[in-house]
Amino acid sequence: MLDLADRLTRARDAAAAAGLDAILITPGADLRYLTGYDARPYERRTCLAVPADADPFLVVPELEEPAALASPAGALGLSMVSWAETVDPYALVASRLPRGMTRVGLDNQMWIEKAIAFRTALPDVEQCLAGEVLQRLRMRKSPAEIDALRRAAAAIDRVHERVGEWLRPGRTERAVGRDIAEAILAEGHVRVDFVIVASGPNSASPHHELSDRIVQAGEPVVVDIGGTTGDGYCSDSTRVYALGQPPDGFLRLYEVLLRAQQLQTTAVRPGVTAEQLDAVGRDLITDAGYGPYFVHRTGHGIGLETHEEPYIVAGSSLPLEPGMAFSVEPGIYLPGRYGARIEDIVACTPDGGDRLNRTTRDLVVLGTTA
Amino acid sequence: MLDLADRLTRARDAAAAAGLDAILITPGADLRYLTGYDARPYERRTCLAVPADADPFLVVPELEEPAALASPAGALGLSMVSWAETVDPYALVASRLPRGMTRVGLDNQMWIEKAIAFRTALPDVEQCLAGEVLQRLRMRKSPAEIDALRRAAAAIDRVHERVGEWLRPGRTERAVGRDIAEAILAEGHVRVDFVIVASGPNSASPHHELSDRIVQAGEPVVVDIGGTTGDGYCSDSTRVYALGQPPDGFLRLYEVLLRAQQLQTTAVRPGVTAEQLDAVGRDLITDAGYGPYFVHRTGHGIGLETHEEPYIVAGSSLPLEPGMAFSVEPGIYLPGRYGARIEDIVACTPDGGDRLNRTTRDLVVLGTTA
Repeated sequence: MLDLADRLTRARDAAAAAGLDAILITPGADLRYLTGYDARPYERRTCLAVPADADPFLVVPELEEPAALASPAGALGLSMVSWAETVDPYALVASRLPRGMTRVGLDNQMWIEKAIAFRTALPDVEQCLAGEVLQRLRMRKSPAEIDALRRAAAAIDRVHERVGEWLRPGRTERAVGRDIAEAILAEGHVRVDFVIVASGPNSASPHHELSDRIVQAGEPVVVDIGGTTGDGYCSDSTRVYALGQPPDGFLRLYEVLLRAQQLQTTAVRPGVTAEQLDAVGRDLITDAGYGPYFVHRTGHGIGLETHEEPYIVAGSSLPLEPGMAFSVEPGIYLPGRYGARIEDIVACTPDGGDRLNRTTRDLVVLGTTA
Repeated sequence: MLDLADRLTRARDAAAAAGLDAILITPGADLRYLTGYDARPYERRTCLAVPADADPFLVVPELEEPAALASPAGALGLSMVSWAETVDPYALVASRLPRGMTRVGLDNQMWIEKAIAFRTALPDVEQCLAGEVLQRLRMRKSPAEIDALRRAAAAIDRVHERVGEWLRPGRTERAVGRDIAEAILAEGHVRVDFVIVASGPNSASPHHELSDRIVQAGEPVVVDIGGTTGDGYCSDSTRVYALGQPPDGFLRLYEVLLRAQQLQTTAVRPGVTAEQLDAVGRDLITDAGYGPYFVHRTGHGIGLETHEEPYIVAGSSLPLEPGMAFSVEPGIYLPGRYGARIEDIVACTPDGGDRLNRTTRDLVVLGTTA
């Protein structure tokens, strides 16, 4: 599944080139990327060890070995070491690693309690972050990964196409959000990651989620939703709905935003830097007088996590490359009044940007009666 | 909501008593416990700082301040410090802390990348784990928290009562699991945490989740499911279903397991230790000849996380106290054949155990036709 086979080899080579004697990976997106194993971050201890000069191995609790073997990791020919509940798994990992190591890389999201336990088990080894090495690999997606993101995008598109079934004046954001969450699962995700239904003045808060506010006729409603599919890849798309005729000022704002987002998605190509892509939209919005109200970056990478490298943000000179996939989501927020955000996931190809979300980016005006 | 008011004070006092000059809490269950704020563990930085000798404060990204203020944390009178995207939030936290600190406690699940950033921002301060201090508070639930767990239990009970709508021979575990996941949301959770549908021989793997295996008539099916409710508390309950008449050997196994689980839930009372409670069921199962097949501990605490203190496990001399809530879930697994597990959440009260899940613990025999 998803060309796992050479990821471990590439990670080992990249870690060695970065001067790491081994990398240690606990449950999370890095582990899933390298092995296909979606281990839960429970209190029991699972760890993938990838030494620079020896074969990688996966240490798993005895109880979870059947699940690990049944996962794609089981087909990798990876050596598995299981341990009973009474064993110290950190000492077990340490005992299997080559002697004489001086530096190990830990996955950036490793819990500090585990890092401290590894410090005890490997007292003379310097702990570094493996993140830079792994993010460099993960942000360049293979064609199979882009296909997985395309399936995730299609799944969330199906939910957006149904929003009119649930979004009506008189209902609370929370009630609408509950219906959307069920649809996120029904339309092809295994997990609901977030549901934002921001109505009226709440649309002016970029990170508003759900409230008991009752949606009113004439209001814009920002719906920003995402989930994770069965193979672990995430969706994330924002569309704006209006319940009947929105205020005039809002329509002008929306038109500017739509032009900025279209300009940005068409500006995607290899060699353009993250900050250049951010500026393309920001300049247009600034010229239209809304500059102070575009208060966040343009986007974030997406893959096995909703937010990962590359970030499309001022100050990042990272050049885009084929295989990178990220959100393009400018927003304009007038505090206390209303706001809007339009978001697509875009993959960079040799020929330009490939927009994975396909629903209309126009303001969707819904009827105001049931 | 949920008696938040004195949690910060109690945490500060407990941290000070443990010799910590401050505790630093990043997004996760500890932050939600102390402030009611369910911040996402995204790459932006949020941190609660609770100094021993000064007022606590919450550092949040500017964009997320409205969400933090709208959360229960906004009503706590907690000082909020927001920062723009270009600021180093670790240095900002450090600059606000009292001078001359020597030891800080970090939440146990803090990402190592954040701990390393705090090490740079607070170079002469020893980093310890705040976990022991916080777990001691969190595992003694207030009556309002037990009520929240009771509502979560009732929500998952409603899903178990509907399993017969979806579990039929000829369907895959995955298809059944998808229907159950939708029902977990529909019946009162905001998040699906896990769905285990383990049919036939898969029931012998305690941590099996879902597969494409087609469920057959005559098989036992272990269904272990849980979610999180809107106020953050988790559910977790396991029941066993049979599609028509299961094998004779299975019925004998199930009867032993049922007696063990009943014995354990009625043995809960203040002063009984975790290991004594584990032994009560293990001895009965061992006497019936299944000892080697009860391969895991009896249970785990539950609250804002599905798995937290106290663990009901051999070797733990922790005495139960009123307010502790945990699963009682013995299991018997015959490798390659079949297995079973029965799980209730039980709260310890001054008078004994209060079983929060109320559906029948008997084997539920479903029809084998649609």
